[in-house]
Amino acid sequence: MSGGHGPPDPAGLLDLPHHDGSARYVPEQAPTLGDTVDVFVRVPVGAPVRRVFVRTTPDGEPHFAAATVDRRAGRDTWWRAEVEVRNPVTNYRFLLDEPGGNRWLTALGVVGHDVPDSTDFRLVAYDPPPAWARDAVVYQIFPDRFARSARSARRALPDWAIPCDWDRTPVVGSGPETPYQYYGGDLDGIAERLDHLDRLGVNTVYLTPFFPARSNHRYDAASFDRVDPLLGGDAALARLADAVHARGWRLLGDITSNHTGDGHEWFVGASSAVRAPERELYYLDDVTGDYECWKGVRTLPKLNWGSAELRRRFTEGPEAVLRRWLLPPYGLDGWRVDVANMTGRRGRDAYTHEVAALLRAAVVATRPDGLVVAEHGHDHTGDLDRDGWQGTMNYTGFTDPVWSWLRADDSGAADGHGTVDGDRSGGVTLPNFLGVPGGIRRRDAGSMVATMNAFRSLVSWRSYVHSWQLLGSHDSARIRTVVGDAARQEVAVGLLATMPGTPMIFAGDELGLSGVNGEDSRTPMPWHRPESWDLATFEAYRSLLALRRAAPELRHGGLRWAYVDPDTLVFLRETPGGALLVLARRAAGAPVRLRGLPTGDHGYADNLHGGAPTVRADGDGVVTLPGDGPTFQVWRLS
Amino acid sequence: MSGGHGPPDPAGLLDLPHHDGSARYVPEQAPTLGDTVDVFVRVPVGAPVRRVFVRTTPDGEPHFAAATVDRRAGRDTWWRAEVEVRNPVTNYRFLLDEPGGNRWLTALGVVGHDVPDSTDFRLVAYDPPPAWARDAVVYQIFPDRFARSARSARRALPDWAIPCDWDRTPVVGSGPETPYQYYGGDLDGIAERLDHLDRLGVNTVYLTPFFPARSNHRYDAASFDRVDPLLGGDAALARLADAVHARGWRLLGDITSNHTGDGHEWFVGASSAVRAPERELYYLDDVTGDYECWKGVRTLPKLNWGSAELRRRFTEGPEAVLRRWLLPPYGLDGWRVDVANMTGRRGRDAYTHEVAALLRAAVVATRPDGLVVAEHGHDHTGDLDRDGWQGTMNYTGFTDPVWSWLRADDSGAADGHGTVDGDRSGGVTLPNFLGVPGGIRRRDAGSMVATMNAFRSLVSWRSYVHSWQLLGSHDSARIRTVVGDAARQEVAVGLLATMPGTPMIFAGDELGLSGVNGEDSRTPMPWHRPESWDLATFEAYRSLLALRRAAPELRHGGLRWAYVDPDTLVFLRETPGGALLVLARRAAGAPVRLRGLPTGDHGYADNLHGGAPTVRADGDGVVTLPGDGPTFQVWRLS
Repeated sequence: MSGGHGPPDPAGLLDLPHHDGSARYVPEQAPTLGDTVDVFVRVPVGAPVRRVFVRTTPDGEPHFAAATVDRRAGRDTWWRAEVEVRNPVTNYRFLLDEPGGNRWLTALGVVGHDVPDSTDFRLVAYDPPPAWARDAVVYQIFPDRFARSARSARRALPDWAIPCDWDRTPVVGSGPETPYQYYGGDLDGIAERLDHLDRLGVNTVYLTPFFPARSNHRYDAASFDRVDPLLGGDAALARLADAVHARGWRLLGDITSNHTGDGHEWFVGASSAVRAPERELYYLDDVTGDYECWKGVRTLPKLNWGSAELRRRFTEGPEAVLRRWLLPPYGLDGWRVDVANMTGRRGRDAYTHEVAALLRAAVVATRPDGLVVAEHGHDHTGDLDRDGWQGTMNYTGFTDPVWSWLRADDSGAADGHGTVDGDRSGGVTLPNFLGVPGGIRRRDAGSMVATMNAFRSLVSWRSYVHSWQLLGSHDSARIRTVVGDAARQEVAVGLLATMPGTPMIFAGDELGLSGVNGEDSRTPMPWHRPESWDLATFEAYRSLLALRRAAPELRHGGLRWAYVDPDTLVFLRETPGGALLVLARRAAGAPVRLRGLPTGDHGYADNLHGGAPTVRADGDGVVTLPGDGPTFQVWRLS
Repeated sequence: MSGGHGPPDPAGLLDLPHHDGSARYVPEQAPTLGDTVDVFVRVPVGAPVRRVFVRTTPDGEPHFAAATVDRRAGRDTWWRAEVEVRNPVTNYRFLLDEPGGNRWLTALGVVGHDVPDSTDFRLVAYDPPPAWARDAVVYQIFPDRFARSARSARRALPDWAIPCDWDRTPVVGSGPETPYQYYGGDLDGIAERLDHLDRLGVNTVYLTPFFPARSNHRYDAASFDRVDPLLGGDAALARLADAVHARGWRLLGDITSNHTGDGHEWFVGASSAVRAPERELYYLDDVTGDYECWKGVRTLPKLNWGSAELRRRFTEGPEAVLRRWLLPPYGLDGWRVDVANMTGRRGRDAYTHEVAALLRAAVVATRPDGLVVAEHGHDHTGDLDRDGWQGTMNYTGFTDPVWSWLRADDSGAADGHGTVDGDRSGGVTLPNFLGVPGGIRRRDAGSMVATMNAFRSLVSWRSYVHSWQLLGSHDSARIRTVVGDAARQEVAVGLLATMPGTPMIFAGDELGLSGVNGEDSRTPMPWHRPESWDLATFEAYRSLLALRRAAPELRHGGLRWAYVDPDTLVFLRETPGGALLVLARRAAGAPVRLRGLPTGDHGYADNLHGGAPTVRADGDGVVTLPGDGPTFQVWRLS
């Protein structure tokens, strides 16, 4: 059966009633328990809506209340209803009374049959994420590969390291030496290159782990109590934090809450004696000495969150793992939590939600403006809106659908007979999505939107916009390799910069670097080979991020789909004060004719990005958008 | 946007790969933690599947494993994969590698884009429900309205009762006297009428509350320690239990875990003094004396499941509320839990899942074959598969979609301008679905199936088949009133008797009784007016339930949709040993031509219900089903 969250009907999207959790529809963005808040539904003039009801489920029982017409503006009637924030997560949806029978309006859109509550809109009464996060643009740095300071060359190498030449040694994406290739990037090197980030237009630096370890990625921490001397040690982190903060930016660390390295001082203690105080921190079998580890990798013993001692070490007191690095002289602004999806899960153990709440509380107790964002590579939705993670890395609801829409025509992945561990075609390794067999599927824009809708509809608007949208990371192929050329990469970056959510850019993507998998993508930044930089791509990133900075609609606006066909996506970003129109095309096609755009009284819209002409409504109110492609265009409607 | 779980594509449903949790696809129906179990996917000969992978998410991380071809049988290739039952609820889905790109096979069906994990198939490692429940057919009795014994007339009436004549006083469906109309049915009356149930073909009696109260419905219990003397008292319950058990049947009670009556001895105690031991059982404000109650109804004070004392009174020791009635001389076989959806929910309090597990554990500790089924009138899916409720009253996933498909053409409800509290058109009260405004929507079979799929896909197969399918209850309109005539009622009963899930019949439906809302439907059984019985309807119930009893496919088989158009639904129920074909039509239409039915070697299928001729595959393998309607037909394919 073709069931499922189907692709949107391309015709008449702008004629549908609309609500999302943005400020235009929910003026109170940080409700508290017991509040009664207004929620608005926008009903275009052509929609056959006679009455609107809001349905809530206070304490688990449905309740209907009639909405009233608040105002008419332009071609829209705005209905207003009140919702009591009865529970920490308060669901609501709308019932549209129409001559043909009722329909529901949920976060999935307007639906003509009964659907479960999981796609209801949500008001979340927990404390909101810090205000700065709403405007963050994150730049992800893998320290060994970003930049070396002069101090780097003077450091003695540890036994595990295979020294590599920054500009000449190829990164080995898959092989026994992969975790040990050592290029020598360090924290002072990062501090020296912040002008590059400034030119790009980011304002938040996220560092993958800086704790000592036995690998270049450092997800096998040997301690949480000090910064790896190979990166410059504690003092270098303090210097980097100062440099970042001096620019008014934010700095985030990366904490592995699921496991440590087997060289971690805790694990060494735990392994030394059955009665060691660290014993309970892990899943160690007293008889066999065997232990649980991350996906069977023996160097990564899994932490046991049933342990009160583990919770204490992570969260209690100013010296706790999660807290000390948020305090001076480091002052990290929060954490990205590694393998958050597995943290606290093991067989019967299901501590994830309480651990997430515990970690978040520890961060916020240390600094009220701290951020906690979870890594999650598949369906993260069940772990959000729970007073824990304030957002996630939205691989499934953004990266994957964008990849599948913009995938290079010739990558052949969808037709390849790949294997689980790595898809190959004609001897060439092809990118896949986080290990999903069969390569990256080629999908139309309707499917992309259906997937985006499916994941977005299961979380609050707040969790959606505080999640990180990314086109790739140190754990995936690079976007350039996935899409194959600069033109499609610009379309991808356009979506990154103009859709809701926090853009996250993996260092090097802006220079057009390539990489077929996560390890292969950990390319040293080609500082000394500027001739290799794709400056047009850099300019696309720069200008699109500048547009995002300049337009509050792109940072805080709602999202309305306006048109979808296989090669085309058109949407609106709207605040109470303005509206932008976005056109993304992966290929040329017929010009798109749209009726019902909020062009305002003047009837035209100036181009803000992409270089297309101003568009104007004709006598029938129809606006025609150009058919060239690939292209990414943004206009200001009002 | 028209997103949502779309209606199924009518063409080629039988060409789609299929899996459900039934024994044909998951031979191990009661896995335990740590098991590795086989799961099978059936791929019809025409499907372009090259490889099949199973995806699991052990401890929260995706894992893919290749399936292998187990066998070829008829037109199907059966792929086999192994799933480790790593977590108490273990998710899995299939990836179908096809030339056009991968598709997923989840409990929602075959989907061409990425969908959240919520519709993954589920293996549940908690103890299964009792074996008898798989074959149960439940008959719901509202004691005041079912039958009077001779003892009834001799009882003194309480002050709240408005005495009514069984055959002459009309039931008032909505008014101040509604809860007080007293007809005098009692438990001995039920025991005297069991032959009626036997003729009908049910095997499980579910009684709405029998505890003393101040209303005819008794959901405002005054005690949980004794049977209402108006019903005959404790001894009458013991007599009824003996009579039911003597037939090899089961008897279920009805417990209100969300609230009591304000006349309950606990509440009287709680109200008497701030230091009363019962105080903590409720949400009582020490200053104002105010208290939380069910939907604001003052006579129904809400129980506070944060109270250890409440938990003790319900579950600890043989005299506990939930346990004593399961023991001799009563020996109830389990409970239907009233307002389970709100139980334990209040503002920040969210005890529901732990209370459900606690109550179920108490029942099973008392008798291992005890059943616990939850009332839930909207989306129950989040409360199942949690070691608590073993099933639910599946109003949303069955009643509502069936109603909207078979709704009477002339009820006008979908076009009515109803109010929230009761929809009226031209002065006539129209039925609605549990208070949803706008009356009962008229929907096509595609929408019905989409809704059924949407709810089914969010729970395990086990929870789905142990939930009660019902066409109505003491809380709803009666099916006859909703569908308008006996012909459509037969179609509805056909779905009740042939779909997965436990059929539940509200007493009187089988006689064609009517009722526009729950209270109006609590009609005294017309024992003394046999001329009013709709004997054709009774015969439809009887023969369809007999068919269900005779055909293991209908009780234990999987479910495959075969064809859907607005007026028609065709599906298969299949076990490893046989296959039935079901045709439901709400109206006449074109004959349906189906290719790919498993008719077996002989190529024909004999009719088992409905009277249509034997159907035969023609030379092209096409079977043509008749276009008459309304109709309900069942054939045996193999």
